[in-house]
Amino acid sequence: MQWYLVAALLTVLTSSQGILTTLSQSNGEYKYDYATVPFLAEVFKLAVSSLLLWKECQKSPPPKMTTEWKTVALFPIPSIIYLIHNNVQFATLTYVDTSTYQIMGNLKIVTTGILFRLFLGRRLSNLQWMAIVMLAVGTTTKKKTARQSGLQILNSTDLSSLHVSSRNSLDITMSTRHKGCGEASCDSLFSAPIQGYMLGILSACLSALAGIYTEFLMKKNNDSLYWQNIQLYTFGTIFNMARLLMDDFRGGFENGPWWQRIFNGYTITTWLVVLNLGSTGLLVSWLMKHADNIVKVYSTSMAMLLTMIISLFLFNFKPTLQLFLGIIICMMSLHMYFAPPNMLLDMPVTVKSDEEKLIEVSVDRRPHS
Amino acid sequence: MQWYLVAALLTVLTSSQGILTTLSQSNGEYKYDYATVPFLAEVFKLAVSSLLLWKECQKSPPPKMTTEWKTVALFPIPSIIYLIHNNVQFATLTYVDTSTYQIMGNLKIVTTGILFRLFLGRRLSNLQWMAIVMLAVGTTTKKKTARQSGLQILNSTDLSSLHVSSRNSLDITMSTRHKGCGEASCDSLFSAPIQGYMLGILSACLSALAGIYTEFLMKKNNDSLYWQNIQLYTFGTIFNMARLLMDDFRGGFENGPWWQRIFNGYTITTWLVVLNLGSTGLLVSWLMKHADNIVKVYSTSMAMLLTMIISLFLFNFKPTLQLFLGIIICMMSLHMYFAPPNMLLDMPVTVKSDEEKLIEVSVDRRPHS
Repeated sequence: MQWYLVAALLTVLTSSQGILTTLSQSNGEYKYDYATVPFLAEVFKLAVSSLLLWKECQKSPPPKMTTEWKTVALFPIPSIIYLIHNNVQFATLTYVDTSTYQIMGNLKIVTTGILFRLFLGRRLSNLQWMAIVMLAVGTTTKKKTARQSGLQILNSTDLSSLHVSSRNSLDITMSTRHKGCGEASCDSLFSAPIQGYMLGILSACLSALAGIYTEFLMKKNNDSLYWQNIQLYTFGTIFNMARLLMDDFRGGFENGPWWQRIFNGYTITTWLVVLNLGSTGLLVSWLMKHADNIVKVYSTSMAMLLTMIISLFLFNFKPTLQLFLGIIICMMSLHMYFAPPNMLLDMPVTVKSDEEKLIEVSVDRRPHS
Repeated sequence: MQWYLVAALLTVLTSSQGILTTLSQSNGEYKYDYATVPFLAEVFKLAVSSLLLWKECQKSPPPKMTTEWKTVALFPIPSIIYLIHNNVQFATLTYVDTSTYQIMGNLKIVTTGILFRLFLGRRLSNLQWMAIVMLAVGTTTKKKTARQSGLQILNSTDLSSLHVSSRNSLDITMSTRHKGCGEASCDSLFSAPIQGYMLGILSACLSALAGIYTEFLMKKNNDSLYWQNIQLYTFGTIFNMARLLMDDFRGGFENGPWWQRIFNGYTITTWLVVLNLGSTGLLVSWLMKHADNIVKVYSTSMAMLLTMIISLFLFNFKPTLQLFLGIIICMMSLHMYFAPPNMLLDMPVTVKSDEEKLIEVSVDRRPHS
């Protein structure tokens, strides 16, 4: 399968995630416990990966599986990073308003580029760096609409991460709708305390780190993707379970333990949200193995724009200039990052023709020598 | 003189134009007739160009001057285009609000690129096209601040055009401040009648055409720049004079003819506005001869951003996220358009080193032949 087809599918699914999540509300409320969604998605991913690994085992040669403890021990780390990230997110929100928080969320695009360079040692051209910054800017310009719409934009990207996602991101988006911010506080820069911005940057770094680390993990050896998935999702399931249990402890088991009320309020749409979230997770996993983090970042960022466009029709939003400009910038960014350099520069010269030139010239030179 | 130094100077002066114009108000009003400013600026440019031509005539070889009627007859055309443009501007404003009008003004950047390609036959790379679109987007995102500030942003770019500028652009900016627009009407797209957008596009084309035509005129032959200027500004002065006279006719000579009240209400700042406007005109003229329209467009667009930044300090505005993102986009656009391709792509291969490699290779090849 081509990576760009997977990336396109990820864009479509991530985009539907936001819309499905919105549609899963009844009268603007969630009748089900949202924290159960990522847990069930992890279970779904684990089941699918197990099935695929089993099918792979039937064939010969059998899939490569490293089972030594030293390697397996690396797989809970992404879950741990996401756990820390969730807590930093909450700390950030005590300092900055949700709108500023959402805008800072796009820093993740830039930090992913930086960690991609630093930790994975991948070189990006000057132009590709600019493309990454453009993507971050392009997705930022239309945040206002997202805020006004109350759509689960934040969710749709955060939940498409591989692992533990929590009710936290939902709470953030929920509060977004209730806690409006005045024109001034949304638009003016650096009005929040400095700690808020520091934590926002830390949050962006952690989010990027989880992605970069996962890519490192998946590409570290040529183990079967499904075997790697199983390890990843097993820890994901455990961490999500622990989270549900912790929520119960905090609530003093008022509503009983989580496993007794896990499907409470579930509708068909809720199940679609679970399936969708699980599928995006599997696609992200595939991209980490066969493509890279930047491809994933483009997929999920484009999904934000796609969500906006679909919302225009579905929820009857008015298109804004900001959205329109954001789309232009993101499309140019996409083209700049992935188009071959000679297309960008309209250069007729390729490496191949360079070699041809070499031969011609050496022929030309002979008479002089 | 290097073109980029002239361009940088143009940026600074264009930027001061907006600020000086604002400072030339007393209690938020213009005590002088603003239509006299471009007229006096034309006279100033004519005087400076005459002086410089006279000095050039003292030296040998004498400057090249084509005086045949066929060539001279081409010089009133820019003034005529600006005259039509002014009327189209007014027609546009009967259909769209001023905020939409200002945003559409940035289409000028794109149309300049298109006419540059079509009429002057200059090729731009894929990347340079994207840079031009980025510049238009980047300068659009911060229009809101301009509107709120009541600064003469529109003026500062329009008056830096070579020729007849009129009280029209001032009226536009003035009305901007009085005629506020609601959040919805400013942000939502395509809410005005289609005629408004058609006229806006026509306006952008005419504005670009005037620039492109002037470049064609200046580069048509290697006449002395000062001689070309004299022809240009003579017609500019005549057209401005005609405009002042027309205003008098319209007003029924209530305040007497324009030449009797030309300096009424003039302060030192007003004179600085005149000098500044004249100087920017001379610089634009130089750029048309020795650089091109795209350089001019970058200069004046960067000036808009510089004006914003200076206003933050001078008029105590709050920096907005839109401004910040706009600056990032414009800076990247500048880099993309003007940086050498191998810097953008981090290619070690340059034309020079290619030649060196050729020699090495041909040396290597000799033993084989």
